[in-house]
This record gives sequence, structure tokens and C-alpha cells, in this order.
Amino acid sequence: MGKVKVGIIGAGRIGKIHADHLMKMNEVEVVAMSDIFCGPELQTWCSARNIERIYANSDDLIGSPDIDAVFICSSTDTHVPLIEQAAQAGKHVFCEKPVSMDLASTGRALEAVRQAGIQLQVGFNRRFDHNFMRLREHVQNGTIGDPHVIKITSRDPSPPHPDYVKVSGGIFMDMMIHDFDMARFISGSEIEEVYATGNVLINPLFSQYGDVDTAIVTLRFANGALGFIDNSRQAVYGYDQRVEVFGSQGNASVTNDYPNTVVISTAEGVTRDKPLHFFLERYEQAYRDEVHAFIESILNQTPLSVNGNDGLQAERAALAAKWSLHYGRPVRLDEIHGLSE
Amino acid sequence: MGKVKVGIIGAGRIGKIHADHLMKMNEVEVVAMSDIFCGPELQTWCSARNIERIYANSDDLIGSPDIDAVFICSSTDTHVPLIEQAAQAGKHVFCEKPVSMDLASTGRALEAVRQAGIQLQVGFNRRFDHNFMRLREHVQNGTIGDPHVIKITSRDPSPPHPDYVKVSGGIFMDMMIHDFDMARFISGSEIEEVYATGNVLINPLFSQYGDVDTAIVTLRFANGALGFIDNSRQAVYGYDQRVEVFGSQGNASVTNDYPNTVVISTAEGVTRDKPLHFFLERYEQAYRDEVHAFIESILNQTPLSVNGNDGLQAERAALAAKWSLHYGRPVRLDEIHGLSE
Amino acid sequence: MGKVKVGIIGAGRIGKIHADHLMKMNEVEVVAMSDIFCGPELQTWCSARNIERIYANSDDLIGSPDIDAVFICSSTDTHVPLIEQAAQAGKHVFCEKPVSMDLASTGRALEAVRQAGIQLQVGFNRRFDHNFMRLREHVQNGTIGDPHVIKITSRDPSPPHPDYVKVSGGIFMDMMIHDFDMARFISGSEIEEVYATGNVLINPLFSQYGDVDTAIVTLRFANGALGFIDNSRQAVYGYDQRVEVFGSQGNASVTNDYPNTVVISTAEGVTRDKPLHFFLERYEQAYRDEVHAFIESILNQTPLSVNGNDGLQAERAALAAKWSLHYGRPVRLDEIHGLSE
Amino acid sequence: MGKVKVGIIGAGRIGKIHADHLMKMNEVEVVAMSDIFCGPELQTWCSARNIERIYANSDDLIGSPDIDAVFICSSTDTHVPLIEQAAQAGKHVFCEKPVSMDLASTGRALEAVRQAGIQLQVGFNRRFDHNFMRLREHVQNGTIGDPHVIKITSRDPSPPHPDYVKVSGGIFMDMMIHDFDMARFISGSEIEEVYATGNVLINPLFSQYGDVDTAIVTLRFANGALGFIDNSRQAVYGYDQRVEVFGSQGNASVTNDYPNTVVISTAEGVTRDKPLHFFLERYEQAYRDEVHAFIESILNQTPLSVNGNDGLQAERAALAAKWSLHYGRPVRLDEIHGLSE
Repeated sequence: MGKVKVGIIGAGRIGKIHADHLMKMNEVEVVAMSDIFCGPELQTWCSARNIERIYANSDDLIGSPDIDAVFICSSTDTHVPLIEQAAQAGKHVFCEKPVSMDLASTGRALEAVRQAGIQLQVGFNRRFDHNFMRLREHVQNGTIGDPHVIKITSRDPSPPHPDYVKVSGGIFMDMMIHDFDMARFISGSEIEEVYATGNVLINPLFSQYGDVDTAIVTLRFANGALGFIDNSRQAVYGYDQRVEVFGSQGNASVTNDYPNTVVISTAEGVTRDKPLHFFLERYEQAYRDEVHAFIESILNQTPLSVNGNDGLQAERAALAAKWSLHYGRPVRLDEIHGLSE
Repeated sequence: MGKVKVGIIGAGRIGKIHADHLMKMNEVEVVAMSDIFCGPELQTWCSARNIERIYANSDDLIGSPDIDAVFICSSTDTHVPLIEQAAQAGKHVFCEKPVSMDLASTGRALEAVRQAGIQLQVGFNRRFDHNFMRLREHVQNGTIGDPHVIKITSRDPSPPHPDYVKVSGGIFMDMMIHDFDMARFISGSEIEEVYATGNVLINPLFSQYGDVDTAIVTLRFANGALGFIDNSRQAVYGYDQRVEVFGSQGNASVTNDYPNTVVISTAEGVTRDKPLHFFLERYEQAYRDEVHAFIESILNQTPLSVNGNDGLQAERAALAAKWSLHYGRPVRLDEIHGLSE
Repeated sequence: MGKVKVGIIGAGRIGKIHADHLMKMNEVEVVAMSDIFCGPELQTWCSARNIERIYANSDDLIGSPDIDAVFICSSTDTHVPLIEQAAQAGKHVFCEKPVSMDLASTGRALEAVRQAGIQLQVGFNRRFDHNFMRLREHVQNGTIGDPHVIKITSRDPSPPHPDYVKVSGGIFMDMMIHDFDMARFISGSEIEEVYATGNVLINPLFSQYGDVDTAIVTLRFANGALGFIDNSRQAVYGYDQRVEVFGSQGNASVTNDYPNTVVISTAEGVTRDKPLHFFLERYEQAYRDEVHAFIESILNQTPLSVNGNDGLQAERAALAAKWSLHYGRPVRLDEIHGLSE
Repeated sequence: MGKVKVGIIGAGRIGKIHADHLMKMNEVEVVAMSDIFCGPELQTWCSARNIERIYANSDDLIGSPDIDAVFICSSTDTHVPLIEQAAQAGKHVFCEKPVSMDLASTGRALEAVRQAGIQLQVGFNRRFDHNFMRLREHVQNGTIGDPHVIKITSRDPSPPHPDYVKVSGGIFMDMMIHDFDMARFISGSEIEEVYATGNVLINPLFSQYGDVDTAIVTLRFANGALGFIDNSRQAVYGYDQRVEVFGSQGNASVTNDYPNTVVISTAEGVTRDKPLHFFLERYEQAYRDEVHAFIESILNQTPLSVNGNDGLQAERAALAAKWSLHYGRPVRLDEIHGLSE
């Protein structure tokens, strides 16, 4: 196999980020993008990068015989049909999270992938973050013994646009899904039960859609470990992404990344700059490395480090949390079958 | 009022610590101690401190007309009768936590205190810790806006003696009760609901007594804030006592205290010594300051900074957590009335 | 002006780093490299990057009419003649530090640059480091008032190869020259006097060449500030690059960058990984940004952020330090004229 | 020997601190204080502590047969005659630093001590600081190999009263003398040569007395190590007391102590409180432990951990630094004999 020829479906922010990372790889050629809004802005953007083909319709992109792999960066409701279509066309797929908002659909997508024998990577970029990778290495090496308690804090600097809140699928499916995946990644164990509580403390808008802006979820893992995740839609000091694993032989913690190490001491106190502002800054390296890993797996025919089942399991936990919040009781993940949202 | 004359009931470790702190205060005279084991060891200990009177029976101590205040440092089951007795005798009382293990008894003790018009301070020493006091100051000053999420981590370096586990009242009443009080202290709000989960991950012994050694509790506060507490009976790196408050205008966190600031960088990594080992080291200043505060309140007839109701509310939360763990569902604190353990 | 066409003289490690950074810039085309060793390894390297022209002789590269700018990454003794030659050919120059090891030669190079009206940037990459840039911003903004004391620590993880020690020009000209530049950059003032002391504590080899492997230099600045720099050729824990500025209104300090934020607490202590190992890791961003800045200045005809005079002044300080170590007395920089090494 | 009976000469701030620490020791009885100003304030202070004897004249105190040890906390010019007098009277002596401002006088005091066979401890309290003790332990254990570079930063929060500046003996003898002692303590080696530079950057008043308010001193040690000390009379963020030792196997550093561990993150940045404000807060534990060590050595007839020779060597370094600043050249300590200030 020579270069991997890639097409990108969805030219929003994340589609463009992936394109830019892919274009810096010698092993890759980005040959096409598709977007339902394929106006002059996108043409300028593509021509500056020598991306020659722009499609208004993803069918044309998936139908291109020269394309080896597609990146699905369009809205969530399009993911499953696009995966099925790509699978049938024999293209490998990188799909943004979540695969879908109901397990039955995600299941269908995974089945299509299985039958076609293609590779499907889900965009859990945080698995590739330098801090979390090192943390997991320590857990796997036994540095801290058996994990007893996993703690994940994940807060955004500011809430998404109201239009997005409406279609986001709610805090568990949209935001905490990353943390459910992180919990599985770090613990090396499946989540068996969740208990969710939450509140609307930032913006009443969230109530309108039956959503919360602040949420806490307690986890029980198959290996006996316990855990919790806390999410907030608004941390005024910036993106707050921390994980801690407490185990029989010690504790391992990851704190935020900062733009610099300057510390200022004055008569008022001792100060440093805020952490890196949001996911584009904090996870720049992770976004780059996840597409590298995907391309490497395709070229070398090696297993993906995050696959369709990882997408499915995180969705299952998100749905269980949603149900738990609704019914006010702990919910076992095996209660969550093919049910829709 | 001249010096406050104090008698100490229970000459175990904590009784002796209080005695030593009291004896360094100019405003106090420690005139007597009582302990059911009042052998030569205690006599030597007392005579080295010029504490002249040692009683085998606490009745004699409480009955001494010259004593203004008693410190109740004996086993938990003796607390309520001793408080009642002291109240009737018109002595102010400092009582170790918990007041009792059932709300009805604690209620009786509080009623006796109220009728006698004496002061009752409960030994929630952590309220006086320099770190937590500063944290609370920030919360009260509005530095971080309205509290949204309170996170408390509290881990002991090693489990208590098996004999103690049996009578401890369980992890919620024995250990997490401090954290329930901390949650109220820091948030400035009442706990309305708890959900508890836990496991036996350190020593099967805990199972024998229906107890767990690792526990997580989710909290909902009256002011809308959420919270959680995680406890472990064994952190091999020492006493782990941290609190974090996330709010609408920022985040405030307290980390552990360390014995020194030395940082060593070698070919193997960058290292520092472990945190202060256990409560005697970490809370030395807090133990001193809580007895100072008690004496000051008595002398100046000012309100106590931690009173009987604080004891009651923390017990209520502990019982709710116990119930929650047992029934596997969230429990509202108003479900917890005068019920026994 | 369209793209800046660049030729790189010297295909060692640093020449290749610059080439890779330049090739990721849309505004740049790397059209040629030259190296006296231009064998198959270099051809492979260049062909993987589509760099078509490889010269054995830098004359051919400088003589190419299509080249706008040359990067001089060859050995120090070649710098001045190459700068003169490039200046006469009207090419802008990016030259690695030091320009030369005697002020007379450096002066000739600067004069050639002045007469030709070209731009000359000296490779003081650390000025572009995110930490030091932020530090300087604080100093310039007056965050810490007037600078009183500048402290610079700079230690390499391991000594250079013995062959290099011989021709390095000594610790002041080879290594501390970066710190002299940093001192000027951060203080915003000229160094007026230095006092150097040093010792051979790591490897006796350094003695053979009249060099030291551990050195401390005290600085006096024109604005009254004081400073010192300490250098070591071997810090077993990795690259140690710290700066601190103490001023009338406070203190600003920069510590090292680390590969991750993971902190491990075990029964043995609290540990994190070592700092980024060496200049390639620590200054990756700075290397990228210095070539960006150079290209931007050429394209926009704006002043360089580090120019030939900066090279000259740092060399002057390095020579003064060398003299100070030799004579065992403080040396004023105005004692150091066109003298040779 | 029963209790050690102590008399304190000089009832200023430091005399009172020592008295309070001594009075909390079971092995000690503070029987007398003397001060040339022994008015009602001192009488009140003493009577609150049951110190019965107050002398206007130190002769009376030293002449008291029941006194075992005297603490000399009066002005520096009185130290040597008082040591001689106490030695003749067979009293052990704890003397504040410096012993005197000229080596001849200090030498006389040490000779008197030697002839009388008494113990003389000099008040280098920082040797007892928990951080510096741990640092030294690491150096002695070989954790960081052979010391190569010792770095000491020592800054006061604000300059002393102008009246004091006049008689202080200058920054080297008054302030940096602590750091010279620290350098010897940590390195385990003698200082052989110093080079001093300094400036008046804070208050022109210092110039009037031929003094500087900002000073840097380079050190060469007998074991080949190098070092430097920087002092400032005014760090607006509080007392800045840091030490770093770089060695063949690593680096060990001590940073400041802080009043609490609270860290606040807001939209403006990440902040903590300033370090402990001044020596009374930072060295409270060290002040307590130095008098404990003195009393223990007397009771157990064990060697002092800081003795008269330590006082002498630090003074020698301070005088060498003064000379170096004056003559603008490095000064070897063996150039500094019995010379007066």
C-alpha cells in the first residue's frame, strides 16, 4: 500500500483539524472533503491546502474508488448511515463520537463494520493525551497496585451554543461520554453500574431540554473498583481535565496542562496563568496522535487502540447515566440493551 | 471568671492530646482526669504534668464542684450519658465525635444541653485546620462565586485495629462523619440527600461486620450544590485529606500538608517526601486551635464554632449513607429521624 | 514576494530541524541543502522531503539566483565567511550561534550585513520559548517592577562528545552564550561587567582544553540590576533551564517543562517523571517559532527579534567571562574590544 | 542534673521568643531576665509567665549562682564581654549571631569558652529548620552525589528600621551571615573564597552607611564545589528562603513554606497566598528546636550542633565578602585574620 488516500465528511472545526493533521503525514493524501455547505469559504480553505475535490454530497465522496479511508465529522445523526455506506464500499472509517445516540443503531453500524472487515476508530481523542497515556501506563505496570477508586473531573470553559444544546443528546452523551471512555481506558475494566445526579446551576436553558449543566456520576467497575466523574459546562478558569487513580499501592494523578511555567509572586499573592483554555489547545497533541494511530493501524493492519466496541460501551454508560438521573436510582449497564434514547 | 478548670474523661490518645494543649494555655487549669484504667502509667503521665487528681470513675470527676468544663474522650457509647450528667452538673462539655450512633440518643443529649444552658462543642477538629479555614473563607467571601460541586477525599494511612473495626460504627459513622461535617462547613448549606456505594477492597475483615473499607458518597445540598466524598481505610502513602470547591466564579482546592519542601531530581525522576503521615501530624494545629476556641467561647460567652447541632447533622448524614449503601438507593436526610443505628 | 526560497548550509542535526520546520510553512520553499558530506544518507533524507538540489559546496548554494535566504548551520569557523558571501549575494541570513569566536570577525560579518542591507538573525532560539517569552512580557509590563536580580540556571543532561569539547570554544562561548543572551533579553539592559568562576567536577577531559565543566558568572547590568548564571555540563536528571527575575514589586520565575503532569504517590514518596530531556524536546516549539519569526520579518520587512548585534553582545560577554576566569578578577565588557579568542 | 536553670539577657523580641520556648520545656526553668530597659512592660510580661527575677544589670544575672545557662540576646557589641563573663562564671551560653563584628573579639570569646570548658551555641536557627535539615540529610546520604553548586536565596520582606541599618554591621554581617553558615552546613565543606557584588536598589539610606541593600556573593568551597548567595532587603511578597544543591547525581531544592495549600483558579489566573511572611513565622519551629537542642546538649553533655567555631567561620566569610565588595576582587578567607571590621 502506498499513501493512504483519505476523504473527510463534514468540514466543520473538527473535520478541518483532522485534515490539517493528516496533511502533515507523509503516509497520507487528503484527496477530498464533503460538506452540505460547500461554499466559497470551504473552497478557499481547500485550495490553500491543495485539496482538489470538494463534494456537496457525501455519497460522491464515499463512492470515489480511490479513497481508502473516510473521516466522519458530520452531525451525529448521520454517523450510522455513513458508516454503513462506507463499510459497504470497503473504506476504513474514523468516526467522531458518539457513534449514535441509541445502542440499536450503533449495533447496526458495528455489524456492518464486522461484515465488511474494515477498521472503525471512534474519536476518543483523550486516550492519546500524553498525560492520560502515562497515567494508564502506570496503572498497567502495577505502579499503584490494584485500582480502587477512579476519579475524573471534566469541565468545559463555557457552555456550547444554545442551538447545539438542543441537539447535543444531553450532558452524558455529549460530554461525559469522553469520561466514560476514559474510565474504561484507565481502569482496564468494564463499568457495571452508574448512579447519576445533576443540576441546572449555570444556565436555565438546559432545563428546557431536560438536560443538566452540572452532573456527578458514581461508577462501579467489574473488577470491584469504584469511581466518579464530575462534569460542568462552565469553568471560568478554562478547561479542567483531571484524572486520579487510587490503588492498593498508591495514587496516580493527572493535573491540567498550562501554557507556561511562569510563577509570579507579588504583594498580592503567588500567581500563574490559567490552564490551556479548551480542547483545541489541551488536546492538540492528542488529536494529532489519534489520526496517526489510525493511519498506522490501516497501513500495518494492526488492531486499533480504540474501536467500535469502545464507542458502544461508552454510549451504554451514557444511556445508563441518563436513565439513572431520570429515575433517581442506580442503573446497571446490563439493563441497557438496544433501547433508543 | 478566672482560669477555666477542666476535667478530662478518658485518658486515651486523644484525651492526652487535649490535656497537653490545654495545659499550655494560660487561661486553663487541667485539674483532673478520669479513666477506667487508671493505673501507674496514667499516674506517671499525670504527675509529670502536675495533674493532681485521677479518678477511676467519671462520676467523681463530673461531681467535682471546682470543675467548669469536661472533655469527653471516652468510648462513643458513654458520650450521651456523660453529656447528660455533665449538663445537669452545669459543666460545659467538649465531646469527641460522634455524639452517638443513633439520632434519638444524640437528640436527648442536645436537649439536656439546651435545658442546662451549657455549651457543647463536638470534636470536629478539621474545621480548625489552617487549610480548610482558608478555603471556607474564600467560599464565604465569594472568591469562587456560588458553590456548584464540593469534593472531599479522605483516606487513612492504614486500617484501625480489628477490635476497633468491630465497634467503630462503620466507615460512615466512624470516618466519613468528619467529611459530612466538612461538607456542611465548607458549603454553608445542609446536605439533603446522599447516595452511597462501597466495597471491601483492602481487608475482608470489614465484611464480617457488614462494613466496607472503600466508600463513595454523592451529596445533594439544600442550596443546589452537588458533592462527593471518597474514603479509603488504607492509603499506603499516608493521610490523604483534600477538599475542592468548584463554583460559578472559579475553583478552590486544598491539597495535603508535607513535612518539608525538599524536592529531589535524579536520573530516576523527581521526588519529594510523602505527606504528613496521619491525623496527629496533619491536624496538630487544628487540635490545638479547637480547644482554644472552646475555652475562648466559654470565657467570652460567645457562640461555639461547632456545636451539638453540627454533631447531629453529621450523624444524620452518616446514617443516611449507611441506609443508602444497605438499600442501594439514594436516601433523603429527612427520611432519617430518631431511628437507631 | 511569493514564497521565500531557502537554502540550508550544513545538514547536521540543527540544519535538518530547521529544514523540517521550514517545510511545514506555506510561505516557504526549501530548495537546496549543502554539506561537505553529501552522501547517500543525505540524498535519501532530502528526497523524502522533495528537496531537489544538494550541493557539496556552499558556494553553489549561495550562488543560486533563486535563493532568497540561507540558513548557516555549518561549523562555527565557517560562519563569518559564509555571512559575508551571502550578504554580497544579497541573501538574508539565519546563522547559528555563535557568529564567531572573536569580536573582530563578528564585527566584519555585521558590517557586511549592514552594507548589503540584508537581514541577519542569530540562532538564539530560547528567546522564542513560551516560558521565557511570557517571563519577559511580565518584566516589560512592570508586573514585578524594576528588575533587581536575574538568575539563570542552565544545565545539559550530559557533556558533548570529546571531539566537540576540543573545538567548542569553551563553556562560555559554546553554552553560556545562550544565557548571556537570555540575560539581555529578560533584563532589557546591557551587561556591563562579569565575574566568572568555574571548576572541573565532571570530567577531567575539560581541563585538557583549558575549559571547565561547571561555571558560575556574576553579572552587573547597565540599569543597576545584578545577576548570575550557573552552567553545568551534566545534570543527570535532564535538561535544566530555569530563569528567575526578582524586582522591586515581586518575583517571576520559570521552571522546567515536563513530559506529563502525572504524579505518583506510593509508600516510598511522591514522584513525577524527569523534565524534558534535552534541547530538542524542550525547545521544539522555540525552534519552530524562531524560523517562523525570521520568515515573517523577511516577508513583512519588519525588524528581527534577534539580530547581529545581539550575537555580538553575547559574544562579548562570553569573552569577558573567559578572561575573568583566566585572570581571576571581574572584567568590564568595555575592556573587550576586537580581541581574538 | 535536674532542671536546667536559665537566665536571659536582653528582653527584646528574640529574647522573649527564646523565653517562651524554654518555658514550655519540662527540663528547663527560666529563672531570670535582664534588660537595661526593665520597666513595667517587662514586669507584666514576666509576671504573666511566673519569671520572678528581673535585673536591670546583666552582671547580677550572670552572678546568680543558681543559673546554669545564659541566653545572650542583647545588642551585638555586648556579646563578647558577656560571653567572657559567663564563661568565667561557668555558665553555658547560647549567643545570638553574630558573636562579634571582628574576628579578634570573637576569637577571644571562643578562647574564654575553651578555657572554661563550657558550651557555646551560636543562634544559627536556620540549621534547625525542617526543610534545611532534610536537605542536608539528603546531601549527607549521597542522594545527589558530590555537591557541585550550592545556591542560596535569602530575602527579607522589608528593610530594617533606619536606626538599625546604622549599627547592623552591613548586609554581609547582619543578614548574609546566616547564609554563609547555611552554605557550610549544607555543603559540609569550608568556604575558601568569596566574590561579592552589590547595589543600592531599594533605599538610598543604605548608601549613607557604606552598605548595600541587594547583594550577590560567589563562593568557592574547599571540596571544589561552587556556590552563590543572593540577598535582598525587600521582597514585597514576603520572606524568601530557598536553597538548592546541585550534585553529580542530582539536584535537591528547598522552596518556601506557605501558610496554607489553598489554590484558587478564577478567570484571572491561578493563585495562592504568599509564603510565610517573615522569620517569626517561617522559623518558629527552628527557633523552638534550636533551644531544645542546646538544652539537650547541656543535659546529656553531647556536642552542640552549632558551636563557636561555626560562628567564627561565618563571620570570616562575611568579612571577606565585605572586603571583596570594597576592593572589587575575589577574597580568600585565609586573607581574613584577626582584623577588625
